[in-house]
Amino acid sequence: MRQERIAAAQELMQANDIDALLILTHDDYIYFFDEDRFQPRAIIPQKGPPVVICSRAEEREIRESLGAQEVRLFATVGQQMHEVVSIMQGLQSMLGRPPTIGVQFWFETPAVLLQLFQQANPQAKVVDSAPVMDTLRMVKSPEELALMQEAARIAERGMEAAVQAVKPGVTENEVAAEAVYAMRKAGASGTAVPIFVNSGVRSLWLHGTATAKTIEQGDFVVITLVPVFEGYCVDLTRMAVAGQPTDDQRRLFDTYVAAQRAALEAVRPGVPVSELDRAAEAVVKDAGFGEHYVKGMSHGIGLRFEETPAPTIQPKHASVELQEGMTIAVGHPILAVPGIGGVRLEDTGSVTATGWQSITEYPKELFIRN
Amino acid sequence: MRQERIAAAQELMQANDIDALLILTHDDYIYFFDEDRFQPRAIIPQKGPPVVICSRAEEREIRESLGAQEVRLFATVGQQMHEVVSIMQGLQSMLGRPPTIGVQFWFETPAVLLQLFQQANPQAKVVDSAPVMDTLRMVKSPEELALMQEAARIAERGMEAAVQAVKPGVTENEVAAEAVYAMRKAGASGTAVPIFVNSGVRSLWLHGTATAKTIEQGDFVVITLVPVFEGYCVDLTRMAVAGQPTDDQRRLFDTYVAAQRAALEAVRPGVPVSELDRAAEAVVKDAGFGEHYVKGMSHGIGLRFEETPAPTIQPKHASVELQEGMTIAVGHPILAVPGIGGVRLEDTGSVTATGWQSITEYPKELFIRN
Repeated sequence: MRQERIAAAQELMQANDIDALLILTHDDYIYFFDEDRFQPRAIIPQKGPPVVICSRAEEREIRESLGAQEVRLFATVGQQMHEVVSIMQGLQSMLGRPPTIGVQFWFETPAVLLQLFQQANPQAKVVDSAPVMDTLRMVKSPEELALMQEAARIAERGMEAAVQAVKPGVTENEVAAEAVYAMRKAGASGTAVPIFVNSGVRSLWLHGTATAKTIEQGDFVVITLVPVFEGYCVDLTRMAVAGQPTDDQRRLFDTYVAAQRAALEAVRPGVPVSELDRAAEAVVKDAGFGEHYVKGMSHGIGLRFEETPAPTIQPKHASVELQEGMTIAVGHPILAVPGIGGVRLEDTGSVTATGWQSITEYPKELFIRN
Repeated sequence: MRQERIAAAQELMQANDIDALLILTHDDYIYFFDEDRFQPRAIIPQKGPPVVICSRAEEREIRESLGAQEVRLFATVGQQMHEVVSIMQGLQSMLGRPPTIGVQFWFETPAVLLQLFQQANPQAKVVDSAPVMDTLRMVKSPEELALMQEAARIAERGMEAAVQAVKPGVTENEVAAEAVYAMRKAGASGTAVPIFVNSGVRSLWLHGTATAKTIEQGDFVVITLVPVFEGYCVDLTRMAVAGQPTDDQRRLFDTYVAAQRAALEAVRPGVPVSELDRAAEAVVKDAGFGEHYVKGMSHGIGLRFEETPAPTIQPKHASVELQEGMTIAVGHPILAVPGIGGVRLEDTGSVTATGWQSITEYPKELFIRN
């Protein structure tokens, strides 16, 4: 358990008038407790020890794992919410007023759980926990960077396996199988999002999947890997082509290489996130592909695949200024030109005092696979 | 695209006073559109054609995939919500009153998206889409059963690989790597939840994960696989032991085999879901492990890992009566006895006119692995 992180969160809760954090997601749970559960459930009050809600049979193991902290128990799923209600009531009688509860508002917090919580605790005021959690998590410690470097080594092994597997006649799923296997064998506990192997017309997808589609001669193949190591992930995207690329495909690829480079050169402390987009978009416009540019050249990354600043999810994040120690993925949006295909290169790195330090390392070439 | 399913949904929407369904999850999207997207987003009004919201570059591919239906487009993530707002406003002016919108309230619907929707469309009344979607989806068609049978063949290949990989000195992650690889190679597009390889003290977990923990001599190992084939999944759990089982481990395992058998023998149309628990719990009590029994012996399964009836998630589902053609997983809760370990066997099958027909097939023995 991370006492110093919990203490720092409690200070920020005080500054932001949040009485307790309700933790329902893996990222925040791992951040504070240094371990993971299938259903992470905890409450961190502004004062006093955190409460972890677990099943009765897990009690001994979790007490040993966390140390001598208070651990609330539930024996059925129904009782889990009873525990939360009794904690909330205790909090309210201690405060002498309804508590303000910080909850993560991102894609992993289920609407149904939040609805259940609000029905069971109608007096509680639910607010976004971002002022606490983003402040804590945006800048990474050296220890966190080391975990992301390990995730990057795993991503490189996965990319090597994926690139080797691409050839005409192979399915996207078969490429995904090789990459996932290589990453698990290299130490990944899984991937933060399912691996993307987008070939041919599917290379135009804004996002991706891997499907039973066969990779055909001439297909562009977008490969995105987001392996997880001890909770931390990196984002790595590279491109292959089955057979020989056309001149248009080559030109589109070269444009993205230059656009990503321009964005990376713009990285330094104090620069707003929107500046990376401005730099990349200028290159894409010069190459004549401006009408196909989709904004959102970068996003924060760490314990979550996309974390603050993530302007494609929260437009206001475009004005967030980069800070030394932030980790970001650069090269996020697909440059999709119907008739040619879609192209993307993505790397994860950290903001240094003077610029960009890449964490992921893999050659930025268009891999030609026959 | 499934016109007949859309028409059936529209009839149920009319009967339940729902003006439109807002689709934000893979399961409902696949059910209606017979394909999947990374961010599935669609609106099905009570009258007229459905609206699929996709990125501009995907337009041509999605039109070909779906046929000549109306497809709304968005070019940035910000505009996606604008599209939804304009559709909602159109709906309201057509109806002459604020629309009632059905949304799935389950774990995959993100709180943040629902909050965004409600902020952007404050006049819309959001209700649970379950009266429409559960009615449509609980009973499976022969075509759906065939996809689940294919998922079951994949699960068996994965279980074989996992069981072969278990031995003292191997990590849980290594076992998971082999199972996931075998399932992908056999045609899985992935798994509905990360694979569980819970060994030793971790076998006590209510749910699971696979970790870097080494499997030790004497460890119970719970292996749960939920592979996905064309959107449909099955749940298969088997047990191994590293080295020789103790008498207590053997007795606990045998108890679960008997408890699952009792639950399966209780399956027939008209029986409430709670009856399966009653039957299993009686066996567990007779064996002297009653205090460790956790309720929730079955759950619905299909396009979602857990779907209605799922009494561990919605307690009121305990009173849902089984119907012919429902697909359920039986053997859900861990029987976790500190000092001995946790045990679970889980199979997926369908409710027939007279009882239970298993879809998953794998020997129900305690696999002894040295």
